[in-house]
Amino acid sequence: MTVATAGEFGLISRVTARLGAASPLVLLGPGDDAALVAAPDGRVVASTDVLVDGRHFRRDWSTARDIGHRAAAANLADIAAMGARPTALLVALCTPANLEITWAEELADGLAAEAGKVGAIVVGGDMSASPTLTIAVTALGNLEGRAPLVRTGARPGDVVAVCGRLGYAAAGYTILSRGFRSPKLLVEAHRRPQVPYAAGPSGARLGATSMIDVSDGLLADLGHIATASGVGIDLHRSAFVVPEQMRDAATALGVDPYGWILAGGDDHALAATFPPSIELPDDWRVVGEVLPASLPAGDGVTVDGRRYTGGAPGWDHFR
Amino acid sequence: MTVATAGEFGLISRVTARLGAASPLVLLGPGDDAALVAAPDGRVVASTDVLVDGRHFRRDWSTARDIGHRAAAANLADIAAMGARPTALLVALCTPANLEITWAEELADGLAAEAGKVGAIVVGGDMSASPTLTIAVTALGNLEGRAPLVRTGARPGDVVAVCGRLGYAAAGYTILSRGFRSPKLLVEAHRRPQVPYAAGPSGARLGATSMIDVSDGLLADLGHIATASGVGIDLHRSAFVVPEQMRDAATALGVDPYGWILAGGDDHALAATFPPSIELPDDWRVVGEVLPASLPAGDGVTVDGRRYTGGAPGWDHFR
Repeated sequence: MTVATAGEFGLISRVTARLGAASPLVLLGPGDDAALVAAPDGRVVASTDVLVDGRHFRRDWSTARDIGHRAAAANLADIAAMGARPTALLVALCTPANLEITWAEELADGLAAEAGKVGAIVVGGDMSASPTLTIAVTALGNLEGRAPLVRTGARPGDVVAVCGRLGYAAAGYTILSRGFRSPKLLVEAHRRPQVPYAAGPSGARLGATSMIDVSDGLLADLGHIATASGVGIDLHRSAFVVPEQMRDAATALGVDPYGWILAGGDDHALAATFPPSIELPDDWRVVGEVLPASLPAGDGVTVDGRRYTGGAPGWDHFR
Repeated sequence: MTVATAGEFGLISRVTARLGAASPLVLLGPGDDAALVAAPDGRVVASTDVLVDGRHFRRDWSTARDIGHRAAAANLADIAAMGARPTALLVALCTPANLEITWAEELADGLAAEAGKVGAIVVGGDMSASPTLTIAVTALGNLEGRAPLVRTGARPGDVVAVCGRLGYAAAGYTILSRGFRSPKLLVEAHRRPQVPYAAGPSGARLGATSMIDVSDGLLADLGHIATASGVGIDLHRSAFVVPEQMRDAATALGVDPYGWILAGGDDHALAATFPPSIELPDDWRVVGEVLPASLPAGDGVTVDGRRYTGGAPGWDHFR
């Protein structure tokens, strides 16, 4: 059955039925003009990310469930990068009228499962027909009384540390682009990023001075911190270990794996700066340091003291 | 200059520059991974609506600024219909790469101006290229300590009342569809709905038992209240006055104006039920009454005791 056959309200009721979870923080879920979500400390964190068919995902590369995981992850990671705990998602789905309704149901399953990893649930949304399959997600989050981890707080002398994977999703994307389907570790990383959500709030508690989620590529995203904080950042290439499967894939495809690691996005690792005195647990790897600003704005991230020229300078969604 | 020439970050910075307003409830606006908005009573109301080019708007019928007003209004009305005051918007914009950047800037102006009517501001968003111009908006709101006005509270004996315009936007849509551009009152109502936002919170304070915003058509939207509350609703046709310009336009086009009033959407009037003992101010017009459920679910709204057959039964976004 297609979504057009089911109709707007049929589709909404079938999709809503897949979101069966509950949360003590959700006071009113789908079915009214709006949802009602608790904001226990009197503030709510909110972020929106949109995924467009053929640009952010391909239906021949990823299942509907994969795409649901990825759409949720991209948004939940933004909440984590503020040092907050995600509470709820709202989803606007635009689909061609001939989309199979099972595709929409499995998308909902993926969204709900990814949100469930952090105890968040889908509380509302909207649907429309459109020639272009488009998924716009808004995530809400709870800072639990903490200050938000913004991009402006990095100070010279801080260390730069990363929690989570780098380059896996970009490697998976390259592998799929070349027509291959393995190694599975990398291809699956493109389909369903493994985001270290808990490191957002725990990084905040450790005393991080700034944090960002790596969606455009480590150099590009640290560039946002450097610009916003008015500092320079130097990364140590030796701090990045190339996993064996990534090295093998890079060799087979004739590419530099550091391009994936330093400039590839979509793993949604968390990158943060910490005062040097803080002892970081093992899940945070120190990969560089914050320096006084000495370079022109927008060009403030170097690798071993030099501007990195080995990969694309981050992802521009219009190019 | 097109959005592709400006690039993603160029477009974001140009659009963000148009949103210059401030709000005491917005603790952190655009520019970080997420925004931070105050939720003074420890709860946040949240709703998402998406508008798709050619389906919800036409760029040859409406300016970018009009479309910004309309996209904001559709979402702000949902917040008002919960009895809440809107605080913030997040906007995901998908555009063809060859869109003129001035179009995106004027869209932002419209969004900001409509939000400004209720003291809300645009706090964040996302942008992507897409073959289909798509605007997904999420609105947040503040209940100021009140209970949310849900669809389940209508009780037999309540009166049904409406605040705001009915049929104007639908008349404007029909007029534009037939190739005309006037009367201006009706055409402009399609382009920029006049939403009685303040009636949401004030209706809640008056003691409304349920409320909804009329986006799919009065019969369809009251049908949601009837179903959710397990009641019937009977409307009095004599309570609906056809404005002179609407009557003239209907006569000229050979249509029944009550089709626009009873089944036309997109004016975002607020429809509510109130206990009969409550004295309503003039901006609420009593148009019917709540009855015990006696009809099959989904068919619970009648006009003068009969099922209405004169117009489309509300808008299905997949048909």
